[in-house]
Amino acid sequence: MKAEIINIGDELLIGQVVNTNASWMAAQLNKSGISVVQTTTIADDDEAIKNTLDQAFKRAEIVLISGGLGPTKDDITKKTLAEYFDSKLVFHEPAFEQVKKIFAARRFSVSEVNRRQAMIPEKCKPLFNKNGTAPGMWFEQDGKVVVSMPGVPFEMKAMMEEQVIPAIISHFQMEAIVHKTVMTTGMPESMLAEKIGDWENNLPSYIKLAYLPQPGIVRLRLSGRGDDRKKLETEIQKQIEKLKLLIPEIIFGYDDVSIEEVIGQLLLKSKKTVSTAESCTGGYIAHLITGIPGSSGYFEGAVVSYSNRIKTELLGVPAEMIEKHGAVSREVVISMAEGARAKLKTDYSIAVSGIAGPDGGTEEKPVGTVWIALAGNGDTKTQLFHFGEHRGRNIRRSALAALNMLRVELTE
Amino acid sequence: MKAEIINIGDELLIGQVVNTNASWMAAQLNKSGISVVQTTTIADDDEAIKNTLDQAFKRAEIVLISGGLGPTKDDITKKTLAEYFDSKLVFHEPAFEQVKKIFAARRFSVSEVNRRQAMIPEKCKPLFNKNGTAPGMWFEQDGKVVVSMPGVPFEMKAMMEEQVIPAIISHFQMEAIVHKTVMTTGMPESMLAEKIGDWENNLPSYIKLAYLPQPGIVRLRLSGRGDDRKKLETEIQKQIEKLKLLIPEIIFGYDDVSIEEVIGQLLLKSKKTVSTAESCTGGYIAHLITGIPGSSGYFEGAVVSYSNRIKTELLGVPAEMIEKHGAVSREVVISMAEGARAKLKTDYSIAVSGIAGPDGGTEEKPVGTVWIALAGNGDTKTQLFHFGEHRGRNIRRSALAALNMLRVELTE
Repeated sequence: MKAEIINIGDELLIGQVVNTNASWMAAQLNKSGISVVQTTTIADDDEAIKNTLDQAFKRAEIVLISGGLGPTKDDITKKTLAEYFDSKLVFHEPAFEQVKKIFAARRFSVSEVNRRQAMIPEKCKPLFNKNGTAPGMWFEQDGKVVVSMPGVPFEMKAMMEEQVIPAIISHFQMEAIVHKTVMTTGMPESMLAEKIGDWENNLPSYIKLAYLPQPGIVRLRLSGRGDDRKKLETEIQKQIEKLKLLIPEIIFGYDDVSIEEVIGQLLLKSKKTVSTAESCTGGYIAHLITGIPGSSGYFEGAVVSYSNRIKTELLGVPAEMIEKHGAVSREVVISMAEGARAKLKTDYSIAVSGIAGPDGGTEEKPVGTVWIALAGNGDTKTQLFHFGEHRGRNIRRSALAALNMLRVELTE
Repeated sequence: MKAEIINIGDELLIGQVVNTNASWMAAQLNKSGISVVQTTTIADDDEAIKNTLDQAFKRAEIVLISGGLGPTKDDITKKTLAEYFDSKLVFHEPAFEQVKKIFAARRFSVSEVNRRQAMIPEKCKPLFNKNGTAPGMWFEQDGKVVVSMPGVPFEMKAMMEEQVIPAIISHFQMEAIVHKTVMTTGMPESMLAEKIGDWENNLPSYIKLAYLPQPGIVRLRLSGRGDDRKKLETEIQKQIEKLKLLIPEIIFGYDDVSIEEVIGQLLLKSKKTVSTAESCTGGYIAHLITGIPGSSGYFEGAVVSYSNRIKTELLGVPAEMIEKHGAVSREVVISMAEGARAKLKTDYSIAVSGIAGPDGGTEEKPVGTVWIALAGNGDTKTQLFHFGEHRGRNIRRSALAALNMLRVELTE
């Protein structure tokens, strides 16, 4: 079963509003086993609407439209659809009741313009809009379905979840689709692709792999399609078990979990606490950790020791050590981590010191050189990284690498 | 001049990633006076790519493509474009140098897969990708232009701003457009619109105003269109001078400068230093400040005192004070700011304590209640805010409000 999404609205084409409807609608369709072959964004223009519908009909059985149903002159979707399906507009009493009800709640009076919102094409089945004044419309033609919904996200979402998706499922008979995403960090896409190439080539034909890279993270998405959902789930899980043997150390979770969430769960489970001592990351690791609700259960605090003086005065790093080895060194980052662990009295402490750039790099220690230490119950572990990126990305990648060191420690 | 945007990527069609490229690309084109007639999102599928290109060519002179240029098997844009333009792939030395340079910076070795990234269609003009390994491609045919760029937003953005837009402007001959953006914080859009309504109504017909709201910030963009660029620039500046008299206290800068950049410049100029003491913002203010290159010239460090114990032990906030007034109180936030200023030995210190949510709110102090203090040379200033938003947005708005307090202090 194939679907297309058409989002209508001038505001989307001037880039003033990010089109979040397209991805949300696509996700809902995919979850129901319907693949989306194309999404198209067009202006409030009747020729564009008709032409896009013609094209979409060639490729898909289901066409979902959002936008252009407001009461103003530039919203022409309804009139255009009435023409497209050769249907006249008729007054729909329940829709008008809804307009009146919503206006009464806002203490506005109903005008002739609002009455027009209750006119709908005779050939469509109207869909009730519980959050707004414009009803949705369900059309059928040659066994295919076209649904028009409002563009306001919360009106569209309620209509789609409660009415459109169930109606589609009962109208068509559909193949199952199962997705599972494996989250990895610490290995670039191309190296990963080589490492798991054989595994990828041996995937069953009905399971596809996609690489979805972000700075410092590569998501591996497995998608299976077929009649038997149970079998797909089992087979995907079997393939993931094989994958885990190939890259055990870099998989940090599944299905879009963040590494800071994973760490939070691990710390809560083991009843351990953490603090950070940050130089080049400048508080970003603490920010990531505290972005998770409930992080006060395991995060005590941080010292951002941006200047060397703060490293010495607040974390107890000997000034001579900084003098001798430089602030970006194994010795200093160990001292920072152990100092923070002692001063902030936590089970673990992560310390980072590096050269974020653009300035401050030397031949020996170029921009992107980052030392990370993890102090815990026993030896303090260290790692040296060479990210070689821009400032913001060096900071981001340093934080991910630091959090991953803690994750590995907590899972060992 | 008309353009179309094609975004390629399976991940966009299953709704796992919101397509932010489409709106960003559309905004850039619009700013240059090019209207976008359609944006289309399709899969990594060669038939879909060719068909969509055929359609786009019927409607637009410029077609911009993003996505599908990675080294993995599912990325097929380059191969498909080579076929579409009947052009063979040739090895491009400068592109391979860039691949090697990026890999060397990360201390990885270059593989055969990576070498493939340096192959480009013979008929295109390659575009250098300063932030990644996949070069962009510029094709011309029948007076029309097709440009293929990487899908990774920061790679695409640099390529588009620095190469594609200037090349389009010089390739086609276009009317001058001048934009100037006024950055404001601390006043909601509707209040701002009332305050500057008369000024807006009196703008010359060739200058248009757009309100671009973000959490905590409203950008006012003035756009002038005409033949005489000099005249447009002079007139826009004249209008901004009038605007400054109406809202002097809320304008913090121009043309998408960030408040942390403005603060950095002010601190450098006045040779003052700053530190932060953060509870609910969890290090986010320190992260914003240290995101600016050269911030080590005025930022010493921060204490993220997430737990009450750290507030007492590291910042010297009396435990009885927290007991009596609560951690989110005027008294505690003053003590945090003054404690940080003394311990970290800076000219200024900003402290924030609040309830970020979703839990922890009470009737007296609901989620979004935030106290901010600024300690400096003299009285410590405080402000109470009620943001009443979700966790992430409460944190963001708290940080902006805190930075703006410092900015106002520095400009007085």
